[in-house]
Amino acid sequence: MVRAVVQFRPNNFPGKLIIVEGIDGSGKSTQLALLRQWLISRGLIVSFSEWNSSSMVRASTKQGKKKQMFTPTTFSLIHATDFADRLERNIIPMLGAGTVVCADRYAFTAFARDVARGVRPDWVRNLYRMAVKPDIAFYFRVPLEVALNRILGGRASLKFYEAGMDLHLSSDIQESFALFQGRILNEYESMAEEMGFEIIDATGTIQEQQKRVREIVARKLGDSLDRDILRLPAAGAPQAQ
Amino acid sequence: MVRAVVQFRPNNFPGKLIIVEGIDGSGKSTQLALLRQWLISRGLIVSFSEWNSSSMVRASTKQGKKKQMFTPTTFSLIHATDFADRLERNIIPMLGAGTVVCADRYAFTAFARDVARGVRPDWVRNLYRMAVKPDIAFYFRVPLEVALNRILGGRASLKFYEAGMDLHLSSDIQESFALFQGRILNEYESMAEEMGFEIIDATGTIQEQQKRVREIVARKLGDSLDRDILRLPAAGAPQAQ
Repeated sequence: MVRAVVQFRPNNFPGKLIIVEGIDGSGKSTQLALLRQWLISRGLIVSFSEWNSSSMVRASTKQGKKKQMFTPTTFSLIHATDFADRLERNIIPMLGAGTVVCADRYAFTAFARDVARGVRPDWVRNLYRMAVKPDIAFYFRVPLEVALNRILGGRASLKFYEAGMDLHLSSDIQESFALFQGRILNEYESMAEEMGFEIIDATGTIQEQQKRVREIVARKLGDSLDRDILRLPAAGAPQAQ
Repeated sequence: MVRAVVQFRPNNFPGKLIIVEGIDGSGKSTQLALLRQWLISRGLIVSFSEWNSSSMVRASTKQGKKKQMFTPTTFSLIHATDFADRLERNIIPMLGAGTVVCADRYAFTAFARDVARGVRPDWVRNLYRMAVKPDIAFYFRVPLEVALNRILGGRASLKFYEAGMDLHLSSDIQESFALFQGRILNEYESMAEEMGFEIIDATGTIQEQQKRVREIVARKLGDSLDRDILRLPAAGAPQAQ
Protein backbone atom coordinates (compact mmCIF):
# COMPACT_ATOMS: atom_id res chain seq x y z
CA MET A 1 0.00 0.00 0.00
CA VAL A 2 1.26 3.46 -0.85
CA ARG A 3 1.20 5.65 2.23
CA ALA A 4 1.18 9.40 2.41
CA VAL A 5 4.38 10.82 3.86
CA VAL A 6 3.66 12.16 7.32
CA GLN A 7 3.85 15.93 7.68
CA PHE A 8 4.71 16.91 11.22
CA ARG A 9 5.62 20.46 12.11
CA PRO A 10 9.34 20.99 12.65
CA ASN A 11 10.66 21.43 16.17
CA ASN A 12 11.71 25.06 16.17
CA PHE A 13 11.66 25.26 19.96
CA PRO A 14 14.77 25.36 22.16
CA GLY A 15 13.75 22.09 23.87
CA LYS A 16 14.22 18.59 22.48
CA LEU A 17 11.64 15.85 21.97
CA ILE A 18 12.52 12.20 22.47
CA ILE A 19 9.82 9.58 22.08
CA VAL A 20 9.65 5.79 22.41
CA GLU A 21 7.44 3.39 20.46
CA GLY A 22 6.91 -0.36 20.28
CA ILE A 23 4.30 -2.99 21.01
CA ASP A 24 3.21 -3.84 24.54
CA GLY A 25 5.98 -5.83 26.22
CA SER A 26 8.76 -4.29 24.13
CA GLY A 27 10.28 -2.74 27.26
CA LYS A 28 10.15 0.83 25.92
CA SER A 29 8.81 2.38 29.13
CA THR A 30 11.65 0.91 31.19
CA GLN A 31 14.18 2.24 28.71
CA LEU A 32 12.61 5.69 28.73
CA ALA A 33 12.65 5.76 32.55
CA LEU A 34 16.37 4.94 32.54
CA LEU A 35 17.06 7.55 29.91
CA ARG A 36 15.23 10.21 31.91
CA GLN A 37 17.25 9.26 34.97
CA TRP A 38 20.45 9.70 33.00
CA LEU A 39 19.43 13.06 31.55
CA ILE A 40 18.39 14.32 34.98
CA SER A 41 21.69 13.12 36.47
CA ARG A 42 23.43 15.34 33.91
CA GLY A 43 21.57 18.34 35.37
CA LEU A 44 19.06 18.73 32.55
CA ILE A 45 15.41 19.60 33.11
CA VAL A 46 13.32 16.75 31.78
CA SER A 47 9.54 16.67 31.21
CA PHE A 48 7.44 13.60 30.63
CA SER A 49 4.24 12.94 28.72
CA GLU A 50 2.40 9.68 28.48
CA TRP A 51 -0.11 8.35 25.93
CA ASN A 52 -3.79 8.65 26.84
CA SER A 53 -3.26 10.74 29.96
CA SER A 54 -4.97 14.08 29.29
CA SER A 55 -7.41 15.01 32.02
CA MET A 56 -9.70 16.66 29.47
CA VAL A 57 -11.02 13.49 27.82
CA ARG A 58 -10.41 11.05 30.67
CA ALA A 59 -14.07 10.79 31.68
CA SER A 60 -15.21 10.16 28.11
CA THR A 61 -12.47 7.65 27.39
CA LYS A 62 -13.28 5.75 30.56
CA GLN A 63 -17.00 5.70 29.84
CA GLY A 64 -16.54 4.72 26.19
CA LYS A 65 -14.28 1.84 27.14
CA LYS A 66 -16.46 0.62 29.99
CA LYS A 67 -19.61 0.65 27.89
CA GLN A 68 -17.76 -0.57 24.77
CA MET A 69 -19.14 2.36 22.78
CA PHE A 70 -16.10 2.98 20.59
CA THR A 71 -15.92 2.30 16.88
CA PRO A 72 -12.46 2.36 15.27
CA THR A 73 -13.16 5.95 14.16
CA THR A 74 -14.27 7.30 17.53
CA PHE A 75 -11.49 5.37 19.29
CA SER A 76 -9.04 7.09 16.97
CA LEU A 77 -10.61 10.53 17.43
CA ILE A 78 -10.76 10.44 21.22
CA HIS A 79 -7.08 9.50 21.33
CA ALA A 80 -6.23 12.27 18.87
CA THR A 81 -8.09 14.70 21.12
CA ASP A 82 -6.11 13.45 24.11
CA PHE A 83 -2.88 13.84 22.14
CA ALA A 84 -3.69 17.34 20.87
CA ASP A 85 -4.56 18.47 24.38
CA ARG A 86 -1.29 17.17 25.81
CA LEU A 87 0.65 18.53 22.83
CA GLU A 88 -0.71 22.07 23.05
CA ARG A 89 -0.99 22.45 26.80
CA ASN A 90 2.00 20.39 27.92
CA ILE A 91 4.51 19.19 25.31
CA ILE A 92 4.83 22.42 23.29
CA PRO A 93 5.05 24.72 26.34
CA MET A 94 7.75 22.43 27.80
CA LEU A 95 9.67 22.48 24.51
CA GLY A 96 9.27 26.24 24.46
CA ALA A 97 10.69 26.46 27.96
CA GLY A 98 13.78 24.55 26.83
CA THR A 99 13.35 21.19 28.55
CA VAL A 100 13.95 17.71 27.18
CA VAL A 101 10.48 16.24 26.67
CA CYS A 102 10.35 12.44 26.92
CA ALA A 103 7.14 10.91 25.57
CA ASP A 104 6.05 7.33 26.18
CA ARG A 105 4.24 6.66 22.86
CA TYR A 106 3.55 9.36 20.29
CA ALA A 107 1.53 9.75 17.09
CA PHE A 108 3.06 6.53 15.71
CA THR A 109 1.07 4.55 18.27
CA ALA A 110 -2.09 5.82 16.59
CA PHE A 111 -0.68 5.10 13.13
CA ALA A 112 -0.03 1.49 14.21
CA ARG A 113 -3.06 0.77 16.41
CA ASP A 114 -5.74 2.62 14.54
CA VAL A 115 -4.65 1.21 11.19
CA ALA A 116 -4.56 -2.27 12.79
CA ARG A 117 -8.21 -1.53 13.64
CA GLY A 118 -9.02 -0.75 10.00
CA VAL A 119 -8.78 3.05 10.01
CA ARG A 120 -7.35 4.50 6.79
CA PRO A 121 -3.60 5.29 7.08
CA ASP A 122 -3.81 8.64 5.30
CA TRP A 123 -6.78 9.75 7.40
CA VAL A 124 -5.08 9.08 10.73
CA ARG A 125 -1.80 10.59 9.53
CA ASN A 126 -3.59 13.79 8.63
CA LEU A 127 -5.26 13.77 12.05
CA TYR A 128 -1.86 14.08 13.75
CA ARG A 129 -0.41 16.67 11.40
CA MET A 130 -0.24 19.15 14.29
CA ALA A 131 2.35 16.98 16.06
CA VAL A 132 5.89 18.28 16.51
CA LYS A 133 8.45 16.12 14.73
CA PRO A 134 10.47 14.27 17.37
CA ASP A 135 14.19 14.86 17.48
CA ILE A 136 14.64 11.15 18.17
CA ALA A 137 11.99 8.44 17.77
CA PHE A 138 13.14 5.16 19.27
CA TYR A 139 11.45 1.99 18.10
CA PHE A 140 11.93 -1.05 20.33
CA ARG A 141 11.83 -3.99 17.96
CA VAL A 142 10.87 -7.28 19.51
CA PRO A 143 9.50 -10.56 18.10
CA LEU A 144 5.82 -11.02 18.84
CA GLU A 145 6.38 -14.19 20.90
CA VAL A 146 8.87 -12.49 23.21
CA ALA A 147 6.52 -9.59 23.88
CA LEU A 148 3.54 -11.90 24.40
CA ASN A 149 5.46 -13.98 26.93
CA ARG A 150 6.37 -10.85 28.87
CA ILE A 151 2.78 -9.57 28.93
CA LEU A 152 0.75 -12.73 29.27
CA GLY A 153 3.18 -14.18 31.84
CA GLY A 154 3.04 -11.22 34.17
CA ARG A 155 -0.42 -9.73 34.12
CA ALA A 156 -3.68 -10.93 35.56
CA SER A 157 -6.13 -9.61 33.00
CA LEU A 158 -6.30 -7.93 29.62
CA LYS A 159 -8.75 -5.18 28.83
CA PHE A 160 -11.33 -5.25 26.04
CA TYR A 161 -9.86 -2.65 23.66
CA GLU A 162 -6.27 -3.42 24.64
CA ALA A 163 -6.87 -6.96 23.43
CA GLY A 164 -8.62 -5.71 20.27
CA MET A 165 -11.78 -7.58 21.24
CA ASP A 166 -13.78 -4.97 19.30
CA LEU A 167 -12.35 -6.47 16.10
CA HIS A 168 -13.85 -9.93 16.76
CA LEU A 169 -10.61 -11.66 15.81
CA SER A 170 -11.21 -14.33 18.45
CA SER A 171 -13.61 -14.86 21.33
CA ASP A 172 -10.61 -15.85 23.49
CA ILE A 173 -9.16 -12.65 24.91
CA GLN A 174 -5.55 -13.86 25.01
CA GLU A 175 -5.75 -15.10 21.43
CA SER A 176 -7.38 -11.83 20.36
CA PHE A 177 -4.60 -9.88 22.07
CA ALA A 178 -1.94 -11.95 20.29
CA LEU A 179 -3.55 -11.46 16.87
CA PHE A 180 -4.07 -7.74 17.47
CA GLN A 181 -0.49 -7.20 18.67
CA GLY A 182 0.70 -9.05 15.58
CA ARG A 183 -1.17 -6.59 13.38
CA ILE A 184 0.25 -3.64 15.32
CA LEU A 185 3.76 -5.06 15.02
CA ASN A 186 3.29 -5.30 11.24
CA GLU A 187 2.27 -1.66 11.12
CA TYR A 188 5.31 -0.56 13.14
CA GLU A 189 7.61 -2.57 10.90
CA SER A 190 6.09 -1.18 7.74
CA MET A 191 6.54 2.43 8.86
CA ALA A 192 9.95 2.08 10.55
CA GLU A 193 11.88 3.35 7.55
CA GLU A 194 9.41 6.05 6.44
CA MET A 195 9.40 7.53 9.93
CA GLY A 196 13.15 7.43 10.46
CA PHE A 197 12.92 5.38 13.65
CA GLU A 198 16.07 4.68 15.63
CA ILE A 199 15.65 0.94 15.96
CA ILE A 200 16.70 -0.76 19.20
CA ASP A 201 16.94 -4.53 19.41
CA ALA A 202 14.63 -5.07 22.36
CA THR A 203 15.67 -8.69 22.87
CA GLY A 204 18.96 -7.53 24.40
CA THR A 205 19.51 -7.00 28.12
CA ILE A 206 18.19 -3.84 29.73
CA GLN A 207 21.77 -2.60 30.15
CA GLU A 208 22.74 -3.27 26.52
CA GLN A 209 19.66 -1.47 25.23
CA GLN A 210 20.16 1.50 27.52
CA LYS A 211 23.79 1.83 26.46
CA ARG A 212 22.68 1.99 22.83
CA VAL A 213 19.90 4.50 23.64
CA ARG A 214 22.33 6.83 25.42
CA GLU A 215 24.87 6.56 22.60
CA ILE A 216 22.23 7.64 20.10
CA VAL A 217 21.06 10.53 22.29
CA ALA A 218 24.64 11.69 22.81
CA ARG A 219 25.46 11.43 19.11
CA LYS A 220 22.31 13.15 17.85
CA LEU A 221 21.72 15.74 20.56
CA GLY A 222 24.96 15.95 22.51
CA ASP A 223 26.04 19.51 21.73
CA SER A 224 22.54 20.80 21.79
CA LEU A 225 21.82 19.24 25.20
CA ASP A 226 24.78 21.12 26.63
CA ARG A 227 23.93 24.35 24.85
CA ASP A 228 20.15 24.74 24.65
CA ILE A 229 18.53 22.83 27.46
CA LEU A 230 17.46 24.29 30.80
CA ARG A 231 19.63 23.01 33.65
CA LEU A 232 19.21 22.65 37.36
CA PRO A 233 21.61 24.82 39.33
CA ALA A 234 24.64 22.65 40.17
CA ALA A 235 24.70 21.37 43.75
CA GLY A 236 26.93 23.53 45.92
CA ALA A 237 27.12 26.28 43.29
CA PRO A 238 26.24 29.81 44.38
CA GLN A 239 22.48 30.42 44.15
CA ALA A 240 20.77 33.56 42.95
CA GLN A 241 19.17 35.26 45.96
CA MET B 1 -7.72 30.45 -0.82
CA VAL B 2 -7.83 27.17 -2.74
CA ARG B 3 -9.76 24.60 -0.78
CA ALA B 4 -9.64 20.85 -1.09
CA VAL B 5 -12.88 19.39 -2.43
CA VAL B 6 -14.65 17.62 0.37
CA GLN B 7 -14.86 13.85 0.02
CA PHE B 8 -17.86 12.47 1.84
CA ARG B 9 -18.96 8.88 1.42
CA PRO B 10 -22.02 8.48 -0.82
CA ASN B 11 -25.36 7.67 0.74
CA ASN B 12 -25.95 4.12 -0.45
CA PHE B 13 -28.49 3.45 2.28
CA PRO B 14 -32.25 3.25 1.72
CA GLY B 15 -32.85 6.22 4.04
CA LYS B 16 -32.41 9.88 3.15
CA LEU B 17 -30.33 12.52 4.90
CA ILE B 18 -31.50 16.13 5.11
CA ILE B 19 -29.39 18.65 7.01
CA VAL B 20 -29.68 22.34 7.84
CA GLU B 21 -26.88 24.85 8.25
CA GLY B 22 -26.57 28.55 8.96
CA ILE B 23 -25.31 30.96 11.60
CA ASP B 24 -27.00 31.30 14.98
CA GLY B 25 -30.23 33.20 14.51
CA SER B 26 -30.77 32.07 10.92
CA GLY B 27 -33.93 30.21 11.95
CA LYS B 28 -32.74 26.85 10.63
CA SER B 29 -33.90 24.83 13.66
CA THR B 30 -37.42 26.20 13.35
CA GLN B 31 -37.50 25.31 9.68
CA LEU B 32 -36.20 21.79 10.34
CA ALA B 33 -38.84 21.26 13.03
CA LEU B 34 -41.58 22.28 10.57
CA LEU B 35 -40.13 20.03 7.88
CA ARG B 36 -40.05 17.07 10.25
CA GLN B 37 -43.68 17.72 11.16
CA TRP B 38 -44.62 17.70 7.48
CA LEU B 39 -42.71 14.49 6.74
CA ILE B 40 -44.26 12.76 9.75
CA SER B 41 -47.72 13.94 8.67
CA ARG B 42 -47.10 12.14 5.39
CA GLY B 43 -46.62 8.91 7.35
CA LEU B 44 -42.83 8.73 7.00
CA ILE B 45 -40.54 7.62 9.79
CA VAL B 46 -38.23 10.50 10.65
CA SER B 47 -35.11 10.46 12.84
CA PHE B 48 -33.34 13.48 14.27
CA SER B 49 -29.74 14.20 15.17
CA GLU B 50 -28.41 17.36 16.68
CA TRP B 51 -24.93 18.87 16.75
CA ASN B 52 -22.87 18.29 19.90
CA SER B 53 -25.29 15.84 21.51
CA SER B 54 -23.43 12.54 21.78
CA SER B 55 -23.49 11.16 25.30
CA MET B 56 -19.98 9.73 24.84
CA VAL B 57 -18.07 13.00 24.95
CA ARG B 58 -20.58 15.11 26.88
CA ALA B 59 -18.64 15.05 30.14
CA SER B 60 -15.40 16.08 28.47
CA THR B 61 -17.00 18.78 26.37
CA LYS B 62 -18.69 20.23 29.43
CA GLN B 63 -15.51 20.19 31.48
CA GLY B 64 -13.39 21.62 28.66
CA LYS B 65 -15.83 24.49 28.15
CA LYS B 66 -16.25 25.21 31.84
CA LYS B 67 -12.52 25.28 32.51
CA GLN B 68 -11.78 26.97 29.17
CA MET B 69 -9.28 24.26 28.32
CA PHE B 70 -9.94 24.06 24.58
CA THR B 71 -7.56 25.20 21.90
CA PRO B 72 -8.95 25.53 18.36
CA THR B 73 -7.50 22.07 17.59
CA THR B 74 -8.95 20.25 20.60
CA PHE B 75 -12.26 22.08 20.20
CA SER B 76 -12.36 20.80 16.63
CA LEU B 77 -11.36 17.25 17.59
CA ILE B 78 -13.87 16.87 20.44
CA HIS B 79 -16.66 17.96 18.10
CA ALA B 80 -15.44 15.57 15.42
CA THR B 81 -15.52 12.78 18.00
CA ASP B 82 -19.07 13.75 18.93
CA PHE B 83 -20.04 13.77 15.26
CA ALA B 84 -18.42 10.42 14.45
CA ASP B 85 -20.13 8.83 17.44
CA ARG B 86 -23.56 10.09 16.37
CA LEU B 87 -22.84 9.21 12.74
CA GLU B 88 -21.84 5.62 13.39
CA ARG B 89 -24.18 4.74 16.22
CA ASN B 90 -27.22 6.81 15.23
CA ILE B 91 -27.31 8.44 11.77
CA ILE B 92 -25.99 5.51 9.70
CA PRO B 93 -28.13 2.86 11.45
CA MET B 94 -31.19 5.08 10.94
CA LEU B 95 -30.32 5.54 7.25
CA GLY B 96 -29.81 1.81 7.01
CA ALA B 97 -33.24 1.23 8.53
CA GLY B 98 -34.78 3.41 5.84
CA THR B 99 -35.83 6.51 7.77
CA VAL B 100 -35.48 10.16 6.81
CA VAL B 101 -32.70 11.50 9.02
CA CYS B 102 -32.95 15.22 9.76
CA ALA B 103 -29.79 16.75 11.19
CA ASP B 104 -29.58 20.17 12.83
CA ARG B 105 -26.05 21.16 11.77
CA TYR B 106 -23.64 18.76 10.07
CA ALA B 107 -19.97 18.67 9.12
CA PHE B 108 -20.29 22.11 7.49
CA THR B 109 -20.70 23.66 10.93
CA ALA B 110 -17.20 22.46 11.74
CA PHE B 111 -15.88 23.67 8.39
CA ALA B 112 -17.27 27.13 9.16
CA ARG B 113 -16.63 27.44 12.90
CA ASP B 114 -13.31 25.68 13.18
CA VAL B 115 -11.86 27.57 10.21
CA ALA B 116 -13.21 30.80 11.73
CA ARG B 117 -11.11 29.78 14.76
CA GLY B 118 -7.99 29.42 12.62
CA VAL B 119 -7.97 25.68 11.99
CA ARG B 120 -6.75 24.72 8.52
CA PRO B 121 -9.60 24.08 6.04
CA ASP B 122 -8.06 20.97 4.51
CA TRP B 123 -7.29 19.46 7.91
CA VAL B 124 -10.84 19.80 9.20
CA ARG B 125 -12.33 18.61 5.91
CA ASN B 126 -10.25 15.48 6.09
CA LEU B 127 -11.38 14.98 9.67
CA TYR B 128 -14.99 14.63 8.53
CA ARG B 129 -14.31 12.42 5.52
CA MET B 130 -16.29 9.61 7.16
CA ALA B 131 -19.48 11.67 6.92
CA VAL B 132 -22.28 10.51 4.64
CA LYS B 133 -23.04 13.01 1.88
CA PRO B 134 -26.41 14.62 2.61
CA ASP B 135 -29.16 14.19 0.04
CA ILE B 136 -30.12 17.80 0.70
CA ALA B 137 -28.07 20.40 2.58
CA PHE B 138 -30.10 23.53 3.26
CA TYR B 139 -28.23 26.73 4.00
CA PHE B 140 -30.27 29.49 5.62
CA ARG B 141 -28.71 32.69 4.35
CA VAL B 142 -29.23 35.72 6.54
CA PRO B 143 -27.45 39.08 6.88
CA LEU B 144 -25.31 39.25 10.00
CA GLU B 145 -27.30 42.18 11.48
CA VAL B 146 -30.61 40.33 11.20
CA ALA B 147 -29.22 37.24 12.94
CA LEU B 148 -27.54 39.32 15.65
CA ASN B 149 -30.78 41.18 16.40
CA ARG B 150 -32.62 37.88 16.77
CA ILE B 151 -30.00 36.42 19.11
CA LEU B 152 -28.93 39.41 21.16
CA GLY B 153 -32.51 40.64 21.51
CA GLY B 154 -33.88 37.42 22.89
CA ARG B 155 -31.28 35.77 25.03
CA ALA B 156 -29.98 36.58 28.47
CA SER B 157 -26.36 35.51 28.15
CA LEU B 158 -23.81 34.26 25.65
CA LYS B 159 -21.36 31.49 26.45
CA PHE B 160 -17.57 31.78 26.22
CA TYR B 161 -16.86 29.56 23.21
CA GLU B 162 -20.18 30.39 21.52
CA ALA B 163 -19.08 34.02 21.49
CA GLY B 164 -15.58 33.09 20.29
CA MET B 165 -14.05 34.65 23.41
CA ASP B 166 -11.13 32.21 23.06
CA LEU B 167 -10.05 34.17 19.98
CA HIS B 168 -9.61 37.44 21.91
CA LEU B 169 -11.39 39.45 19.21
CA SER B 170 -12.89 41.74 21.85
CA SER B 171 -13.17 41.78 25.61
CA ASP B 172 -16.86 42.65 25.23
CA ILE B 173 -18.73 39.37 24.85
CA GLN B 174 -21.47 40.75 22.59
CA GLU B 175 -18.94 42.41 20.32
CA SER B 176 -16.85 39.22 20.27
CA PHE B 177 -19.95 37.21 19.34
CA ALA B 178 -20.76 39.60 16.49
CA LEU B 179 -17.21 39.46 15.10
CA PHE B 180 -17.05 35.68 15.43
CA GLN B 181 -20.44 35.18 13.76
CA GLY B 182 -19.28 37.44 10.94
CA ARG B 183 -16.29 35.19 10.37
CA ILE B 184 -18.50 32.10 10.40
CA LEU B 185 -20.90 33.72 7.94
CA ASN B 186 -17.97 34.40 5.60
CA GLU B 187 -16.98 30.75 5.77
CA TYR B 188 -20.51 29.58 4.98
CA GLU B 189 -20.72 31.95 2.04
CA SER B 190 -17.38 30.90 0.65
CA MET B 191 -18.30 27.20 0.70
CA ALA B 192 -21.95 27.50 -0.40
CA GLU B 193 -21.22 26.73 -4.03
CA GLU B 194 -18.55 24.08 -3.46
CA MET B 195 -20.86 22.17 -1.15
CA GLY B 196 -23.93 22.39 -3.34
CA PHE B 197 -26.06 24.01 -0.64
CA GLU B 198 -29.76 24.60 -1.31
CA ILE B 199 -29.86 28.24 -0.31
CA ILE B 200 -32.92 29.57 1.49
CA ASP B 201 -33.43 33.31 1.95
CA ALA B 202 -33.81 33.37 5.72
CA THR B 203 -35.11 36.94 5.81
CA GLY B 204 -38.50 35.77 4.50
CA THR B 205 -41.42 34.80 6.71
CA ILE B 206 -41.41 31.40 8.39
CA GLN B 207 -44.22 30.31 6.06
CA GLU B 208 -42.46 31.46 2.89
CA GLN B 209 -39.26 29.69 3.86
CA GLN B 210 -41.03 26.48 4.78
CA LYS B 211 -42.92 26.47 1.48
CA ARG B 212 -39.61 26.71 -0.36
CA VAL B 213 -38.04 23.99 1.81
CA ARG B 214 -40.90 21.58 1.12
CA GLU B 215 -40.81 22.33 -2.60
CA ILE B 216 -37.13 21.42 -2.70
CA VAL B 217 -37.63 18.24 -0.69
CA ALA B 218 -40.53 17.19 -2.92
CA ARG B 219 -38.60 17.94 -6.09
CA LYS B 220 -35.36 16.25 -5.05
CA LEU B 221 -36.67 13.32 -3.02
CA GLY B 222 -40.36 13.04 -3.89
CA ASP B 223 -40.43 9.67 -5.62
CA SER B 224 -37.86 8.20 -3.32
CA LEU B 225 -39.77 9.29 -0.20
CA ASP B 226 -42.80 7.39 -1.46
CA ARG B 227 -40.80 4.36 -2.55
CA ASP B 228 -37.90 3.82 -0.14
CA ILE B 229 -38.76 5.27 3.23
CA LEU B 230 -40.20 3.37 6.15
CA ARG B 231 -43.80 4.39 6.87
CA LEU B 232 -46.06 4.26 9.85
CA PRO B 233 -49.07 2.00 9.33
CA ALA B 234 -51.93 4.23 8.12
CA ALA B 235 -54.49 5.02 10.80
CA GLY B 236 -57.53 2.78 10.51
CA ALA B 237 -55.82 0.46 8.05
CA PRO B 238 -55.83 -3.27 8.86
CA GLN B 239 -52.87 -4.16 11.10
CA ALA B 240 -50.73 -7.24 10.86
CA GLN B 241 -51.54 -9.48 13.81
